[in-house]
Amino acid sequence: MKRKVTLKQIAKELDVSISTVSKSLRDSSEISEDTRLKVKAFAKLYNYKPNNIALSLKNKRTKTIGIIIPEIVHHFFATVISGIEQVANENGYNVIVCLSDESFDKEVINMEMLANGSIDGFIMSLSKETQLKKDFHHITEIINQGMPVVMFDRISNDILCDKVIIDDEFAAYSAVQHLINKGFRKVALITTVDYVSVGKLRTDGYRHALRDNNIAVDENLIIKIEDIDHCAEAIEALIGNHAIDAIFAVNELFAVTAIKAANKFNIKVPEQLSVIGFTDGIISKYSSPSITTVSQNGIKMGGKAAKMLIERLEMEDEEEEHYKTEVIETHLVERESTLSL
Amino acid sequence: MKRKVTLKQIAKELDVSISTVSKSLRDSSEISEDTRLKVKAFAKLYNYKPNNIALSLKNKRTKTIGIIIPEIVHHFFATVISGIEQVANENGYNVIVCLSDESFDKEVINMEMLANGSIDGFIMSLSKETQLKKDFHHITEIINQGMPVVMFDRISNDILCDKVIIDDEFAAYSAVQHLINKGFRKVALITTVDYVSVGKLRTDGYRHALRDNNIAVDENLIIKIEDIDHCAEAIEALIGNHAIDAIFAVNELFAVTAIKAANKFNIKVPEQLSVIGFTDGIISKYSSPSITTVSQNGIKMGGKAAKMLIERLEMEDEEEEHYKTEVIETHLVERESTLSL
Repeated sequence: MKRKVTLKQIAKELDVSISTVSKSLRDSSEISEDTRLKVKAFAKLYNYKPNNIALSLKNKRTKTIGIIIPEIVHHFFATVISGIEQVANENGYNVIVCLSDESFDKEVINMEMLANGSIDGFIMSLSKETQLKKDFHHITEIINQGMPVVMFDRISNDILCDKVIIDDEFAAYSAVQHLINKGFRKVALITTVDYVSVGKLRTDGYRHALRDNNIAVDENLIIKIEDIDHCAEAIEALIGNHAIDAIFAVNELFAVTAIKAANKFNIKVPEQLSVIGFTDGIISKYSSPSITTVSQNGIKMGGKAAKMLIERLEMEDEEEEHYKTEVIETHLVERESTLSL
Repeated sequence: MKRKVTLKQIAKELDVSISTVSKSLRDSSEISEDTRLKVKAFAKLYNYKPNNIALSLKNKRTKTIGIIIPEIVHHFFATVISGIEQVANENGYNVIVCLSDESFDKEVINMEMLANGSIDGFIMSLSKETQLKKDFHHITEIINQGMPVVMFDRISNDILCDKVIIDDEFAAYSAVQHLINKGFRKVALITTVDYVSVGKLRTDGYRHALRDNNIAVDENLIIKIEDIDHCAEAIEALIGNHAIDAIFAVNELFAVTAIKAANKFNIKVPEQLSVIGFTDGIISKYSSPSITTVSQNGIKMGGKAAKMLIERLEMEDEEEEHYKTEVIETHLVERESTLSL
């Protein structure tokens, strides 16, 4: 059997990054001529064919939508996929899912693979690493070649395309305001590192809410988690070392970990500590106490993204480009983890 | 743009099932000649090309694995995918995921789509509807054409291929024996309908454990859930109407719903009722009390399935067919939801 050489193998063989190979094959001026020639010669030798989307789009419609998400063990992304599936199927489209596992390289490889004739367009949310690198050439290139892309949740304003988001800053602002209205002044924040776009926006919302209520921001009450699998220690330190009366967490895993940490110190939730999370997933629903949370409505977000993509795919001829950003409404689901003072 | 007609459209147009279209295109003798001719004429008219796997396999290797799972909002399947991803990536393979949403038609459509040159082989778990219909022609056809398939979890012995399973009956037997060892005699079972292969096996394990301990099986203490989204009423009726001292549930959603139902009746878990679930997911870990459960090790299952598929893909020439069934070990994770009498 003839084996097809992959982007990854070329990168490994020439000891350059996958991004460099991908850019060289597209003759990007960011890459030195020397490298470009080397990559192209190697690719030719091993019969590697970069995708030619324009050609494949002209020849056939696959009636398939490609989804790229950062991770799968995450209830929010699973609900977005359900929402996409529903609208896609109603309109006669199939759905293919690939995971970037929060890796830039995997995002590039998966897009390259799917764009090669398997799908008509993408619905995607950026990997953490892509947000950190701010390297979006693989996405803009695909858009430039005529394949539509709709981004959701983790987006970048540097990419011109249709987008579906929630107003993360306003949603966080409202959640923190809800805590302040209940009489709490010492509100801690458990958030992600700043380069995760939605984490940054939710952090901004927290700061604004405190400021608008004349509460000084205490940086000791803000913790930024890099690795979700090892967040327990940092959260325990926050709760153990500071007198706080409420916590706003930017996802439900941080929220449930905060409740477990409070139990360790015999601090009762909600009697002594109120907790609000973000994302209305199965943890928020089934944990005891059940968790008050900002509901993101992943089903609706996915459905809207699918609708936007299909509309663009089925436009007659080339209409004028006019990208839209749809904002899905959020709301607070009140459960057992919050109490008034 | 030229639009490709889909299996679904042909079925709708001719008012026959997707299965009939798929079988007709393959000249299956199960379908009347009249229908076969009609379907083939229609497909030809609209330029529908059924996949020709043998040809595509000869021409190229995609280095991509296709996964078909019944649903995505299910932690077990998500962990299996992680396990597959890990081993696949280590070996230079990409992974594409499609969902059947428990539908036979979607399973057929997705396999047809992926087999058409996008992937080298399948890793899959059957949809509920496929298990109910016992129609596996879409899978056996793909295997006969030379594309390897590895099945996991929900399998069928009617399909000859490599398989990765756990010993569901033994795992259930051990969990129920664990409850009996703690002194409980009135052990209820919350399970699925019988046509779901793993649910049936776990039910068998429950019955055998009771029998081996000379405990009469009380059919009133066994409830079979068809629709997981509406299981609460049946579980509340079980707990409200019967004096039981332990519950074995065949998945973690049934287990956590049982705990919530017990709370409603002011029955304390574990003091008055012990609960064991199946699948060590985030609910079991984060609910309060945390749930004692049979751990299926989805990561290991996915990794093993990927290894088996890749080995078969990379066999030199045509070696003799010799399908294997690997059994992954399970173990009981003891948490807060079980107590001794």
